[in-house]
Amino acid sequence: MNTLRVVCDQLAPRIADVEHNRALSAKAIRGAAALGAQVLVLPELMQSGYAFNDREEALAVSEELDGPTLTRWKTLASELGIIVVAGFCERLAAGQVANSAALIEPGGRLTVYRKAHLWDREKLIFTPGTEPPPVVETAAGRIAVMICYDLELPEWVRLAALSGADLLCVPVNWPDGPRPAGERPAEIVRVQANAAVNRMFIAACDRHGEERGVNWIGGSVIVDADGYPLAGAVSHQNEQRLVADLPLTQARDKFISEHNHVHQDRRPQLY
Amino acid sequence: MNTLRVVCDQLAPRIADVEHNRALSAKAIRGAAALGAQVLVLPELMQSGYAFNDREEALAVSEELDGPTLTRWKTLASELGIIVVAGFCERLAAGQVANSAALIEPGGRLTVYRKAHLWDREKLIFTPGTEPPPVVETAAGRIAVMICYDLELPEWVRLAALSGADLLCVPVNWPDGPRPAGERPAEIVRVQANAAVNRMFIAACDRHGEERGVNWIGGSVIVDADGYPLAGAVSHQNEQRLVADLPLTQARDKFISEHNHVHQDRRPQLY
Repeated sequence: MNTLRVVCDQLAPRIADVEHNRALSAKAIRGAAALGAQVLVLPELMQSGYAFNDREEALAVSEELDGPTLTRWKTLASELGIIVVAGFCERLAAGQVANSAALIEPGGRLTVYRKAHLWDREKLIFTPGTEPPPVVETAAGRIAVMICYDLELPEWVRLAALSGADLLCVPVNWPDGPRPAGERPAEIVRVQANAAVNRMFIAACDRHGEERGVNWIGGSVIVDADGYPLAGAVSHQNEQRLVADLPLTQARDKFISEHNHVHQDRRPQLY
Repeated sequence: MNTLRVVCDQLAPRIADVEHNRALSAKAIRGAAALGAQVLVLPELMQSGYAFNDREEALAVSEELDGPTLTRWKTLASELGIIVVAGFCERLAAGQVANSAALIEPGGRLTVYRKAHLWDREKLIFTPGTEPPPVVETAAGRIAVMICYDLELPEWVRLAALSGADLLCVPVNWPDGPRPAGERPAEIVRVQANAAVNRMFIAACDRHGEERGVNWIGGSVIVDADGYPLAGAVSHQNEQRLVADLPLTQARDKFISEHNHVHQDRRPQLY
């Protein structure tokens, strides 16, 4: 297992403009492949935009797994030999929709994750997932997927890590808010801590571009297995492309001292 | 419940010099009380020092719960009307010792916590605790206690938070180590994340003073319920006293958006 090049492309999807978003994401996939990336992470709800007024509006732009956007992503992933992780608004049965993320491998395999912990008004729109974050054995290493607010539940991140993830890819849309001057956004701090306590790499791809009054941190970040940033980790409210080369094998060594192993030190009978 | 003044006094205990350490801690208790603090947090193993060669050496300086150091702390806490949280080497039955922390209230009540997750060579010396972090209903609010490496197990911090802690007091001895230039130590980052995902205040008191070749981060920190530092949060390898006034009622409001509650959003049936 060699070094893995991961790219996060912090783009600005437009609400309910799926054709624009499809073109934007296709350009990003080509750009990441041209940089030699094996993995590209795009924002949450890349395909649809975020700030839906209601479920009906989300349903109208939702796609099934053979819809035009996922089909385009699959074609490009295979053509360019790159793994794509990106968010989309998934059409479920009976008029329901999920805030989902696709992990698409060059061979055509599609793994879908449905956000299990919904943020704020998402609860009025999306049906929450009931399955744990998938951990996919890819040619590039073991890659897990979850979405945005899921990261605030350390139990959820732990599940992915205990299932063997080397790299956790996380499409996010982090709404901006107040914080003390000079402080790194708490969203990024939580990514760092999640990585460190599991000795696992994490790549979180945020978005930019005001949408119906919502602004975003623009805090995309790639952190190493010690929890320190390799790229990003500032609030940059514009387009940015993060690139990092990850020595993934480090995530297979969970020892942090001669006698401490971050997972074997757990005492689940006490929790 | 009014604002609570908490002090962390980052001292330099001396290995196996219990009289020195007792005098040092007594002075710190008087100093914190003079500042109007309701709670003082002192380092891990304040009473004994940290870098024991073996269990026999630890046993020789260990104390039972009515030993001279805890008796002194109790007397001062009652005399000065202050809550004291501090680490000590506890003598158990049958020649065993624990890395413990005492929470002493002015009325004389003593609550003892035994470190459940041991760091490195501590595993060769101490018997790990088997009880969850206590959450004590004090006159100043609900205060929980754990010790150092326990903080790297988010499950453990969650237990204290779910039991209603407003403030988690954590005696620590954080060994120093390499980190990227300009980065806040990962130990502090984890404190921030633990506070934020639980909306709970945390006061971690580190030590300074090289001991048998071990140096310390000197990273004492007091963070608010959003996970941002109110005091400390840098590596300061010398004595320092942090003071912060905590609006503890904020920890009783677990809502972080109209629809999100950091504890009710958990889905334990999935974990």
